[in-house]
Amino acid sequence: MQQLIASINRIMEIWVRHGLRDVFISPGSRNAILSLSAIRHPKLNCQVVPDERSAAFIALGVAQAIGRPVALICTSGSAGLNYTPAVAEAFFRKIPLIILTADRPPEWIDQLDGQTIYQEKLFGSHVAESFQIPEFQALKEVEHHISRMANEGYLAALTHRQPVHFNIPIREPFYPSDEINQNWSYPEKVFLKQKPKSKISFAWDEDLIERLRSYKRIALLAGQQTPNAQLIQIINGLSNRLKIPIFSDCIGNMYHGDGAIYRHDAIFKRVAEEQLEELKPDCIITFGLSIISKSLKLFLRNHEDLHHIHIGKGKAADTYMSLQYHIDAPVAKVLGDLREILQPSEEQRHFYDAWKHNQQTAEQSLLAADITWSDAFAYRHILNHINNHSVIHVANSMAVRYANLFFTPKHHSFYCNRGTSGIDGSTSTALGHAYATPHDSHILLTGDLAFFYDRNAFWNHLPKSNLKVILFNNSGGDIFRMIAGPRNQKELEDVFVHKTKGNASYLCQEFSIEYFTATNEEELRKNLPLFIDSPQISVLEVFTKGKTNQEALANLFKNELR
Amino acid sequence: MQQLIASINRIMEIWVRHGLRDVFISPGSRNAILSLSAIRHPKLNCQVVPDERSAAFIALGVAQAIGRPVALICTSGSAGLNYTPAVAEAFFRKIPLIILTADRPPEWIDQLDGQTIYQEKLFGSHVAESFQIPEFQALKEVEHHISRMANEGYLAALTHRQPVHFNIPIREPFYPSDEINQNWSYPEKVFLKQKPKSKISFAWDEDLIERLRSYKRIALLAGQQTPNAQLIQIINGLSNRLKIPIFSDCIGNMYHGDGAIYRHDAIFKRVAEEQLEELKPDCIITFGLSIISKSLKLFLRNHEDLHHIHIGKGKAADTYMSLQYHIDAPVAKVLGDLREILQPSEEQRHFYDAWKHNQQTAEQSLLAADITWSDAFAYRHILNHINNHSVIHVANSMAVRYANLFFTPKHHSFYCNRGTSGIDGSTSTALGHAYATPHDSHILLTGDLAFFYDRNAFWNHLPKSNLKVILFNNSGGDIFRMIAGPRNQKELEDVFVHKTKGNASYLCQEFSIEYFTATNEEELRKNLPLFIDSPQISVLEVFTKGKTNQEALANLFKNELR
Repeated sequence: MQQLIASINRIMEIWVRHGLRDVFISPGSRNAILSLSAIRHPKLNCQVVPDERSAAFIALGVAQAIGRPVALICTSGSAGLNYTPAVAEAFFRKIPLIILTADRPPEWIDQLDGQTIYQEKLFGSHVAESFQIPEFQALKEVEHHISRMANEGYLAALTHRQPVHFNIPIREPFYPSDEINQNWSYPEKVFLKQKPKSKISFAWDEDLIERLRSYKRIALLAGQQTPNAQLIQIINGLSNRLKIPIFSDCIGNMYHGDGAIYRHDAIFKRVAEEQLEELKPDCIITFGLSIISKSLKLFLRNHEDLHHIHIGKGKAADTYMSLQYHIDAPVAKVLGDLREILQPSEEQRHFYDAWKHNQQTAEQSLLAADITWSDAFAYRHILNHINNHSVIHVANSMAVRYANLFFTPKHHSFYCNRGTSGIDGSTSTALGHAYATPHDSHILLTGDLAFFYDRNAFWNHLPKSNLKVILFNNSGGDIFRMIAGPRNQKELEDVFVHKTKGNASYLCQEFSIEYFTATNEEELRKNLPLFIDSPQISVLEVFTKGKTNQEALANLFKNELR
Repeated sequence: MQQLIASINRIMEIWVRHGLRDVFISPGSRNAILSLSAIRHPKLNCQVVPDERSAAFIALGVAQAIGRPVALICTSGSAGLNYTPAVAEAFFRKIPLIILTADRPPEWIDQLDGQTIYQEKLFGSHVAESFQIPEFQALKEVEHHISRMANEGYLAALTHRQPVHFNIPIREPFYPSDEINQNWSYPEKVFLKQKPKSKISFAWDEDLIERLRSYKRIALLAGQQTPNAQLIQIINGLSNRLKIPIFSDCIGNMYHGDGAIYRHDAIFKRVAEEQLEELKPDCIITFGLSIISKSLKLFLRNHEDLHHIHIGKGKAADTYMSLQYHIDAPVAKVLGDLREILQPSEEQRHFYDAWKHNQQTAEQSLLAADITWSDAFAYRHILNHINNHSVIHVANSMAVRYANLFFTPKHHSFYCNRGTSGIDGSTSTALGHAYATPHDSHILLTGDLAFFYDRNAFWNHLPKSNLKVILFNNSGGDIFRMIAGPRNQKELEDVFVHKTKGNASYLCQEFSIEYFTATNEEELRKNLPLFIDSPQISVLEVFTKGKTNQEALANLFKNELR
């Protein structure tokens, strides 16, 4: 046991030296030593979250906020399986997590012993690496092996910005004696492996420069990414000098400059078929991850002669079926260079103006349109009235679509679980982010299905006063009412929408959350400021009706050309 | 699309012919055709459950009740990952599930498209088989390939009694047109593969018979299994004739005969070290899955000269580190034969009497002991007063331990998720079972962590009036207060117990569940019958204190020898 504790404490110390600070623990016996090692380390901030599904999304939210790995600790058995939705999200969204699962020793796997499953490589393809920690032994080789794994795992999480898994078989006894507790300590000297250094800097080759200069209508496309002031400055400089439009969804967080184009859904609703030609880029230069706008995605996929250049370390996705070049180098460096490599041109300016013009028209019509009480009304009103400096989180399904339709460039930043686009952990993720940046105010925009799905987000002792949740309750999965396909099936309300009658008032009472409602425009105008100014965690539940929501969205674009 | 629908409807028809009746659907767009195909089939009973984690445990509960495969349908992305805890439970507990996950077509995997993860072989080692359905094409070969997979998967679930996974890539459009809807049909002629027939019947060999006759102190050990009247009769006949004790936990469901020994935890608490010798079997014959009693498990593992014979089809687990023979044949047949093969003996009778005597003494002391208000008091009282014919479900952690300590052989049957022993889906599983057998009354005994963990069990439209939940709220993970290890750590209440102040009243209001409480003996005596007689789903929340619970359990055995 002493040997086990020494090894675990050594692992923990190595991670602390590398920069680990946050750990989320779900209670259990087999993971007791792991939990104690984390909780007793003076440099680690630990929180206990009993539902592992929520714990993992909270950890994801913290890691998304701080940009560094966050650790998770759970017991053996199905506990770790409850991590899997958040782990997949972290994998595809490039968020580093260090996952520790306690396991039975190998002799008890599949022998009808309790809390025992096949835990080795539990997360399949959704981790950068997985490590099976060997039996702890007082042998220099074994000690070094474990230290090396601890280093390699942390560095893999950092380098790939993805989750890594440590499966740790632990024998009884699980709890340290008084004597061991009195001598509890972390090693002063640990083996620290450094992040691989690459001296090779990116160098442009003539072919690529020539190729880039040959394009006449370049667009930049910012996929999902964390706001980055330095990159915003570089990209705005590039865009302003060369008149390159910057396509950015709300989650692209690159919509602050003059060249920002962020109203694709509204633009494509009104542009005539014959006008589309002038909006076609001959080259898009992408960086970051996914985009939300399906109309933009289809516009680019349907463009036969598009060239796509992706910039960024690691793998490049061929989202638009035209990926020809991948510049595997830091985005800021490449975009900074581009400013000098490319020259302004008339055609490029014309292309830029066409997008700007179309956006302006779409925007005016969108913001001025008369909308009846509905989700569309409420989203537009709320996104116009909430604090510009709030961090805005959006749940998947309709919330992220409405947010992307109505957000304005005054907003500071948007986050959404677009790695897997699940509704399963939106609230927990927002809570984790709010916990990690306690001086920021955080607003979550969510639908009723996503909200109730992740209701265990509130079942923990984390401070929550800087989180405000705006819950759009339209009695079920309203998204299915918006799509012609399911709307025309007789099973619409029962199977797809899953119509519900509930509201969040009981949940708010249970968890001491201040609760506001809005069932019409007047209540929204009255309660939104009270809700925002509440000094504690609060929910504003906006009640709308599916049918009116669908009509409001349809009306919004009815006078448009298409 | 027509081709896709024809194929899906053919698959559904094949499964219906094989006996599928129950399907649980979680809403989504990519799985729309799968959902419609199930919901429109006249022989399938479909229910919609939005939280996939709960949906899968509900399906598990239905399959555990009916003993036949139950199907699950979800959309692409992280949806299927939320099935994983229930799938692992089903795998280790030998419960057949047919899991259908809709997927993107292969060209969009890891290309930053929404709701896309690596879904092939999503459930790793925790399924009997996994199938990747090929692209639907109007080719005889492809049609037969898909029909064959549908057959093989269903038969694998039946034969192995484990989950199987079908991952089904589906392209847009997702929804059938009016024209297709008007011509919606299921094929009359489908390819039906039959379950493999094995003509080889089990034959005893002389060696094994000789070996069996050489044992002097045989015990039967019933691992977890569904109650089985025919087997109970066979085993009681065998036990009565030869005086073989039958070890059965509550979840063994074999505690109804004269020879049943079911008080191991109480027995081992009071038997003196020197008395243990006379209780040692020289051979245990096991059937079924896991046992709960840790004291029995350790007693058998510490017995150096034990021989272990396991009877049952499929893999045999070496739970007691002494498995020497595996009779891979039907249990009823082998045990029936044993009645004739073995002969009564004095030593065997003496061994039987020793167990019976010790059980009687332990039982008297256990049932007569004066217990203060505590979980121990409440469990004993409740297990003595609830309807003998109720199906009793127990959550993991303390609930199953208390139930196993205090249950009496008058009880009809016990169920618990002991495949992985997780607390993650106890309520959903009980609800599924109750839904499948609407004429039975069902009682779930659960703790506060398990109850709140799985609170989404109530978030669906399933009928629930025959489910009664007794919730033992001791403000957190009381199990850690019972074990000396965590009890002696200064982090006990914060890290291990995760002390909470909540109660179920708000949840009950939200979901229209009748709510009763008991904070002392008088209230329990008064409210238990009202709770049981309630015509609707009801919760009885029993409030106890961790410290008193620990003292009550300690006092219960304080006058015992060990």
